[in-house]
Amino acid sequence: MKAAILGYGNLGKGIESALRQNSDFELAAFFTRRDPSSLKTMTEGVPVYSAEDIPAHKDEFDILFICGGSATDLPKQTPEYAKYFNVIDSFDTHARVPEHFENVDKAAKESGHVALISCGWDPGMFSLNRLYANCILPEGNDYTFWGKGVSQGHSDAIRRIEGVKNGKQYTIPVQSALDSVRAGENPTLSTRQKHTRECFVVAEEGADKARIEQEIKTMPNYFDEYDTTVHFISEEEFLRDHSEIPHGGFVFRTGVTGFNKEHKHVIEYNIKLDSNPEFTASVIVAYARAVVRMKNEGQTGCKTVFDVPPAYLSPLDGAELRAHLL
Amino acid sequence: MKAAILGYGNLGKGIESALRQNSDFELAAFFTRRDPSSLKTMTEGVPVYSAEDIPAHKDEFDILFICGGSATDLPKQTPEYAKYFNVIDSFDTHARVPEHFENVDKAAKESGHVALISCGWDPGMFSLNRLYANCILPEGNDYTFWGKGVSQGHSDAIRRIEGVKNGKQYTIPVQSALDSVRAGENPTLSTRQKHTRECFVVAEEGADKARIEQEIKTMPNYFDEYDTTVHFISEEEFLRDHSEIPHGGFVFRTGVTGFNKEHKHVIEYNIKLDSNPEFTASVIVAYARAVVRMKNEGQTGCKTVFDVPPAYLSPLDGAELRAHLL
Repeated sequence: MKAAILGYGNLGKGIESALRQNSDFELAAFFTRRDPSSLKTMTEGVPVYSAEDIPAHKDEFDILFICGGSATDLPKQTPEYAKYFNVIDSFDTHARVPEHFENVDKAAKESGHVALISCGWDPGMFSLNRLYANCILPEGNDYTFWGKGVSQGHSDAIRRIEGVKNGKQYTIPVQSALDSVRAGENPTLSTRQKHTRECFVVAEEGADKARIEQEIKTMPNYFDEYDTTVHFISEEEFLRDHSEIPHGGFVFRTGVTGFNKEHKHVIEYNIKLDSNPEFTASVIVAYARAVVRMKNEGQTGCKTVFDVPPAYLSPLDGAELRAHLL
Repeated sequence: MKAAILGYGNLGKGIESALRQNSDFELAAFFTRRDPSSLKTMTEGVPVYSAEDIPAHKDEFDILFICGGSATDLPKQTPEYAKYFNVIDSFDTHARVPEHFENVDKAAKESGHVALISCGWDPGMFSLNRLYANCILPEGNDYTFWGKGVSQGHSDAIRRIEGVKNGKQYTIPVQSALDSVRAGENPTLSTRQKHTRECFVVAEEGADKARIEQEIKTMPNYFDEYDTTVHFISEEEFLRDHSEIPHGGFVFRTGVTGFNKEHKHVIEYNIKLDSNPEFTASVIVAYARAVVRMKNEGQTGCKTVFDVPPAYLSPLDGAELRAHLL
């Protein structure tokens, strides 16, 4: 399968790296909105084209990995480029999924392509685990926790504060809340009881650290509803200890069965990731395999992880899967 | 959807109970190999027929839940009854899955039915988690732990020892092994290092307890490769504390990503169940919904959990799932 990548940020680089671990894919092209000659990729000999030239390459590739942002890029890019290729994206604005689905579905059906949206781990693997667990235990409660990991949005918010040279924010699930859910106690948890926020800040020389800390802790929507800790550290320490993008999280379903609902059950899925973008990319590459299979079967339109038979993610055939993984 | 249950042991009762939590199913009949008049079910007004009369009821029900044992019942029953209905079973002899699949597939295709085999949690949800995680992290290691829970086979083995009145065996994962896997240390674990076995035994009056304990601990295939603890307890204590059938377990995949494989990731799925048969039944009922949908789409033949799009397990439609669970 010939693959092309649009966008060369953290996610695009993650796709480039993940394709090397999946030998049934060949990385055939990069597309960029920048000047193509300015893009230095990790893979020699693969051409870099301008995103403007996408229509000229119609159906040259089996899949286009669209690695843009959910706020403004993907709502335009995914329906637009589904005209020319099978596509996959990581659209993660949960509230706008129905609208994005409709737009992409229309474009993909009209052009005869398959498009898969909202792939990754949340939405993605976490969604799948919520779905499976809800179907198995129709009477129960759902809990999702995120972290420990870097929130890009909260880190950006810190960096916009006057006097902040650099900053990073970690979202951390509260251990006692995890323990209570895991024990099947079905707690009702406030925002503050589920997660804490820990910030590492490099201040400009002479900046008022007390004021910066106060601004962070009281920032509406981002920090005011959480217990937040702020650490001021040196630039050296920041670069040494906070250059990676780890993340993770937990999905729980707790429910009851039995003629008298007398038996409790706890289903837990959790992940611990050294690199959020590389793991997200790894999920997306597996689903890209499924997209190409569905297209080869004659399917068209927009899909999500809910629509994909798990076997389609694997390079192994049905008999091998049944013999080795069932 | 009209459902029938064949077999009224722990699993059949679990299906009967689970159907009450899924209002799109109607329990329409029981089939038994015993004298039908001897069967006292929990659901009044539902007829009990002899298993011999199954051919006379061809296609009266949308799904037949086959609740027999894997050793001798299911290899015969599932291919046989796939001639008359869509069927689902919990065949769990991993090594014989390919052969069972072929037999069931042939019968189901010839009669135009859909059959789903090996449903439950292992095989079943654990298989799914192995598959997903292997596709996401192609370079890595798999670990499965079972327990804490009751092993029926080991409990039976204890009860066959002379002088044993009653007995129950719990399989327990070794905490330090779980911790090591969860920390991404990729340990190589012997049988003894993964699980311990704990036995609760009611001895006949005057029986030689030291001899019983020795026979348990040295029993080949069952106990000799494990660290085993034996507790002798009274009949009262046994009935009070060991009448339930809890189980559970853990599936891990640890793997690496990155241009230099420098990032580690851990994916964990775990379940903690008060009732093994009721949870197994709950998984099976969700998949029965999918079986009927696949049949209604015109599919035929044998399927496993690997072949089923997750959305097919839910009574909700695609738009509802995308809006609420993605």
